[in-house]
Amino acid sequence: MLVVMQEGAPESQVQNVIDRLVMMGFTVHRSTGVTHTVLGGVGPLETFDPAEFEVLDGVQECHRIVSPYKLANKRFRPQGTVIEIGSVKIGGPEVIVMAGPCSVESEEQIEITASLVAKAGAKVIRGGAFKPRSSPYSFQGMGEAGLKVLRAAADRNGLLVVSEVMDRSQIALLTEYSDILQVGARNMQNFNLLRDLGLSRKPVLLKRGIAATIEELLLSAEYIMSGGNYQVILCERGIRTFETATRNTMDISAIPVLKQLTHLPVIGDPSHGVGKRTLVPAMARATVAAGGDGLIIEVHHDPDHALSDGAQSLFPEQFAELMGQLRLIASAVGRSIAG
Amino acid sequence: MLVVMQEGAPESQVQNVIDRLVMMGFTVHRSTGVTHTVLGGVGPLETFDPAEFEVLDGVQECHRIVSPYKLANKRFRPQGTVIEIGSVKIGGPEVIVMAGPCSVESEEQIEITASLVAKAGAKVIRGGAFKPRSSPYSFQGMGEAGLKVLRAAADRNGLLVVSEVMDRSQIALLTEYSDILQVGARNMQNFNLLRDLGLSRKPVLLKRGIAATIEELLLSAEYIMSGGNYQVILCERGIRTFETATRNTMDISAIPVLKQLTHLPVIGDPSHGVGKRTLVPAMARATVAAGGDGLIIEVHHDPDHALSDGAQSLFPEQFAELMGQLRLIASAVGRSIAG
Amino acid sequence: MLVVMQEGAPESQVQNVIDRLVMMGFTVHRSTGVTHTVLGGVGPLETFDPAEFEVLDGVQECHRIVSPYKLANKRFRPQGTVIEIGSVKIGGPEVIVMAGPCSVESEEQIEITASLVAKAGAKVIRGGAFKPRSSPYSFQGMGEAGLKVLRAAADRNGLLVVSEVMDRSQIALLTEYSDILQVGARNMQNFNLLRDLGLSRKPVLLKRGIAATIEELLLSAEYIMSGGNYQVILCERGIRTFETATRNTMDISAIPVLKQLTHLPVIGDPSHGVGKRTLVPAMARATVAAGGDGLIIEVHHDPDHALSDGAQSLFPEQFAELMGQLRLIASAVGRSIAG
Amino acid sequence: MLVVMQEGAPESQVQNVIDRLVMMGFTVHRSTGVTHTVLGGVGPLETFDPAEFEVLDGVQECHRIVSPYKLANKRFRPQGTVIEIGSVKIGGPEVIVMAGPCSVESEEQIEITASLVAKAGAKVIRGGAFKPRSSPYSFQGMGEAGLKVLRAAADRNGLLVVSEVMDRSQIALLTEYSDILQVGARNMQNFNLLRDLGLSRKPVLLKRGIAATIEELLLSAEYIMSGGNYQVILCERGIRTFETATRNTMDISAIPVLKQLTHLPVIGDPSHGVGKRTLVPAMARATVAAGGDGLIIEVHHDPDHALSDGAQSLFPEQFAELMGQLRLIASAVGRSIAG
Repeated sequence: MLVVMQEGAPESQVQNVIDRLVMMGFTVHRSTGVTHTVLGGVGPLETFDPAEFEVLDGVQECHRIVSPYKLANKRFRPQGTVIEIGSVKIGGPEVIVMAGPCSVESEEQIEITASLVAKAGAKVIRGGAFKPRSSPYSFQGMGEAGLKVLRAAADRNGLLVVSEVMDRSQIALLTEYSDILQVGARNMQNFNLLRDLGLSRKPVLLKRGIAATIEELLLSAEYIMSGGNYQVILCERGIRTFETATRNTMDISAIPVLKQLTHLPVIGDPSHGVGKRTLVPAMARATVAAGGDGLIIEVHHDPDHALSDGAQSLFPEQFAELMGQLRLIASAVGRSIAG
Repeated sequence: MLVVMQEGAPESQVQNVIDRLVMMGFTVHRSTGVTHTVLGGVGPLETFDPAEFEVLDGVQECHRIVSPYKLANKRFRPQGTVIEIGSVKIGGPEVIVMAGPCSVESEEQIEITASLVAKAGAKVIRGGAFKPRSSPYSFQGMGEAGLKVLRAAADRNGLLVVSEVMDRSQIALLTEYSDILQVGARNMQNFNLLRDLGLSRKPVLLKRGIAATIEELLLSAEYIMSGGNYQVILCERGIRTFETATRNTMDISAIPVLKQLTHLPVIGDPSHGVGKRTLVPAMARATVAAGGDGLIIEVHHDPDHALSDGAQSLFPEQFAELMGQLRLIASAVGRSIAG
Repeated sequence: MLVVMQEGAPESQVQNVIDRLVMMGFTVHRSTGVTHTVLGGVGPLETFDPAEFEVLDGVQECHRIVSPYKLANKRFRPQGTVIEIGSVKIGGPEVIVMAGPCSVESEEQIEITASLVAKAGAKVIRGGAFKPRSSPYSFQGMGEAGLKVLRAAADRNGLLVVSEVMDRSQIALLTEYSDILQVGARNMQNFNLLRDLGLSRKPVLLKRGIAATIEELLLSAEYIMSGGNYQVILCERGIRTFETATRNTMDISAIPVLKQLTHLPVIGDPSHGVGKRTLVPAMARATVAAGGDGLIIEVHHDPDHALSDGAQSLFPEQFAELMGQLRLIASAVGRSIAG
Repeated sequence: MLVVMQEGAPESQVQNVIDRLVMMGFTVHRSTGVTHTVLGGVGPLETFDPAEFEVLDGVQECHRIVSPYKLANKRFRPQGTVIEIGSVKIGGPEVIVMAGPCSVESEEQIEITASLVAKAGAKVIRGGAFKPRSSPYSFQGMGEAGLKVLRAAADRNGLLVVSEVMDRSQIALLTEYSDILQVGARNMQNFNLLRDLGLSRKPVLLKRGIAATIEELLLSAEYIMSGGNYQVILCERGIRTFETATRNTMDISAIPVLKQLTHLPVIGDPSHGVGKRTLVPAMARATVAAGGDGLIIEVHHDPDHALSDGAQSLFPEQFAELMGQLRLIASAVGRSIAG
């Protein structure tokens, strides 16, 4: 940590800061410049809040210089993490596409969708079994019955399953039916949930919160990893900005930024990122062009009658056409897509 | 709901939208204008997503005209809600101040603080027993022992207790020790938690999420109220913006906006709103001047040694001085503060 | 316009709104529903502020249903606008790349750069002659001498010139040397400048302001077009959000949104969008993958010694490699890039 | 400046950064720590972009430690700046209120308003003579005739005049009629305009841009001051955020933050800050409670017929009532308001 003292800060204030740093276990290196005294502190872990030092008398500003995440840091595994689930490898040369409806509505729906997306080249089927909605009066999901339907359709079509865990109490259930446990944007900082997922041995798909910085996303990944579960897939799905033409603003630049900072795989969710079907293909293509390791896309065999998020779900034929374009783009950036 | 068709949308598209509305239980009123056909739909509850209609062929835009929250709506109780807990009335003419440390650290700390804030005119002591932090390596709170300490100190000093419930599994425990159950900003859309709190009979202090709109805050209040618990206190505590000079941007205008839209009491949390001690008094004064029904403020008897959020905690003498100013401002807006 | 009255608004308030609408030249259509009276107003131009109606007694909300821009609207020219400058066509099947340094620094610099970018497939050279910086103490540009250097190098290498006009007083000068007049993000709502550019016959490259909505960008284009100059190229170059990992958040979704709303060509500026060289190629690829009609990219033959924005300028070899990738992506979306 | 090298950066990279710093005129101090080498650079002015160093090989991050503004810095005049115009002192113990219509519409309007606001305690009348609007089809202002009307009414009622200068070409005209030259939010970074205002001897009211950080506002003040004009009044008027319940989000915390960072007077503009009449009084009170040195408020004698911004203008009786409340709040914070 670097503590920059104010111009002309008296020696007593400098000593007070040094005492405080030593008390917290830092080794202190002092550098007296023409205008500012700068204190460098080296400690075992930089997890304190720099604001704690910025309120001390005579302190101008304070900077952490050691990254607050260790296990998620690129340096920890410069070669990158490849998550292998059966024959599917996430984070390798192949761009992995996950597709399916927002929520599981019926056996027929899932069987039709699974078959369609598998044929188009997807490797994982998505679908929510629990859908607590922002209105207390909306459809709330099929629960365990939905998970069974998802599992069966996936097995019949050679797909993996990804489904969302909303709450600690659902981890055991989801673990039984799903290959990847999804943490939604609203739960990105549900630290109790993250801690329990750290004890799981299932890969976790961690979505960025709509107001979360990239650093906060990595700290949440660190939370899971610190429990021993290193199989974390990061997902950009749009942040909240002043623009209202799209539901969120999908931060495509988060993809190359994350690829520089971490070894974990990074995918994009264009369906939630923009929230309108007509914009989804463009953003899916942008995700792959920007270096994403995968995509999670909402596809519904009959979106006009979907019980949730129909407006952002692709028609099956749109999805198939998109997959063709994605294959070309993947090869332009030295990757591939199955099919 | 109003559906505005595109200029020149053919009759078949108009009919398709009408069919869809009828299928969803709406009574449809059609209005054919010079440029646009407008369809007005009247239904039992406007909880669907307007985006579902905006993707239909020929539709230009769609507006909900019935507010998506009913119980939280000002219209439901135009006279305003006053929450009575013992002799404390929140939402009445008196501005209620809640004060105390970020987290409960020791019996001594809480006893000193409780005595100090009670003397200065606070009616409620705050303090967190569970502190899951954004870093997995930080102090995580005293748990139930902390709640006991808080309860005892409050009782000795004639104060109420407000403390945060992080998880559904903690509701029973918090209910035993705390008079008001606080829902933190990160849990504002944890709908499972909100639903369970709706079944509780304890008042809930609901904090606005850092990326939540005012309408979303009201929808979360509706969630709790729809379970039968109408004792909800709303709290503005800062939203995330591009400005980095403060931790968050405290949206003081949310206070008068909420007072127009809802009958529920509205308070401000200047400590989290700005995150720096030197700015807290100005924002506390602004909250009362803008019409807030109360405040929740971090006060620590020794902030330089606080285990969390020391940088934003007031010194006891600062708090006492602030209370004097707040009393004058309260009277300027026709309110009062105890003391 | 649609005016939705509050539930139970008395007839006198309804009449007052009708009177106001008629006074402003609207033809009014009234629709009385079960809960709400809705007034539809048809006028010659919907340029008023709906907020003017929302403050009237009894009014709940107000929606414009006619787009506030006419000439920039897709409907005005559904086939799309192609801007032809010499043999270069912007908005056609070819994706046009503009490249060059942030600011013109010397004849040698521009000659080297022009030759390099032309060889790699760029069709336009960029470079600023006037650089008022956010600090009053920084390099302020070469002025007219810089424009001469730019023009000469462009002519020798078969390129067009794009350069920024900072002020109305510079229009004549820029018109003499530049083929495209660039309006910077800070001037997007400098309406005096836009009005004068409307009288020009030079194509205008209009950058989106960092806090401008897509609708505001289109209204600024309308400002120029209403003066008779229909040759406007829109440019996404990043908006300001809470994320600090990148200088701005480049809103890639603005590209497909704009292509739906307007007939004008849309390009991306990844250099300003992210502000860091290592991220520029990913965002340039995303722009083309998302359907952009072109790119404007900073390239410097020696970025480590650039007088401005060196940190975001590509090295020449990076640019050449990027162009190869862009060609493949362009063909994946049915476009082409020269070279 | 502090440059933090990456962990394990080789000596050659460290030397390269040192060479670069020396070339730019910095004296370099090197500090080799356990994990990171840190270079401290002391230079005459810290006006470069730290990003220039962050892209060098081996550099992890870079921090400016000397504030980029000097003249606007609190340190430059710790006692604070009081701007005296006739008998009016801005920045002293009295809170100064500026009031009047958005735009000058007629002689009668201004005379009525001037008399009303003077009686209620305002010291300055506001009113725009040039109104370039975001739509090219709206009312554009009375021009010089409007300024004459404003001057005459101000003189008859013992008021000062504040009016906006939109463009460098208008400075001479505004200087003739107005006591304070207002720079609108959209021009906050129009550096050519700021430079010319630095040569003026009229006080400047500088509004914060809707996407400007507090530091950028201070850099714009520095621009004016570096030309020799130290009479700058800063104005918070709302920033753009995701919240749509108000036109902008008025950042009340900017007031105490600015009072800590600069010696310049700081006022608030609640009318543009929130954009709705019913919210203006609460935000005006909050401004004074938070320590603002003044207010600029829109008041119209007949807002329902205002040609611009009627929705946010107070009725005269509302304004008079508000002034009464503001007097009480001013005295609660040790200030006064005339009347």
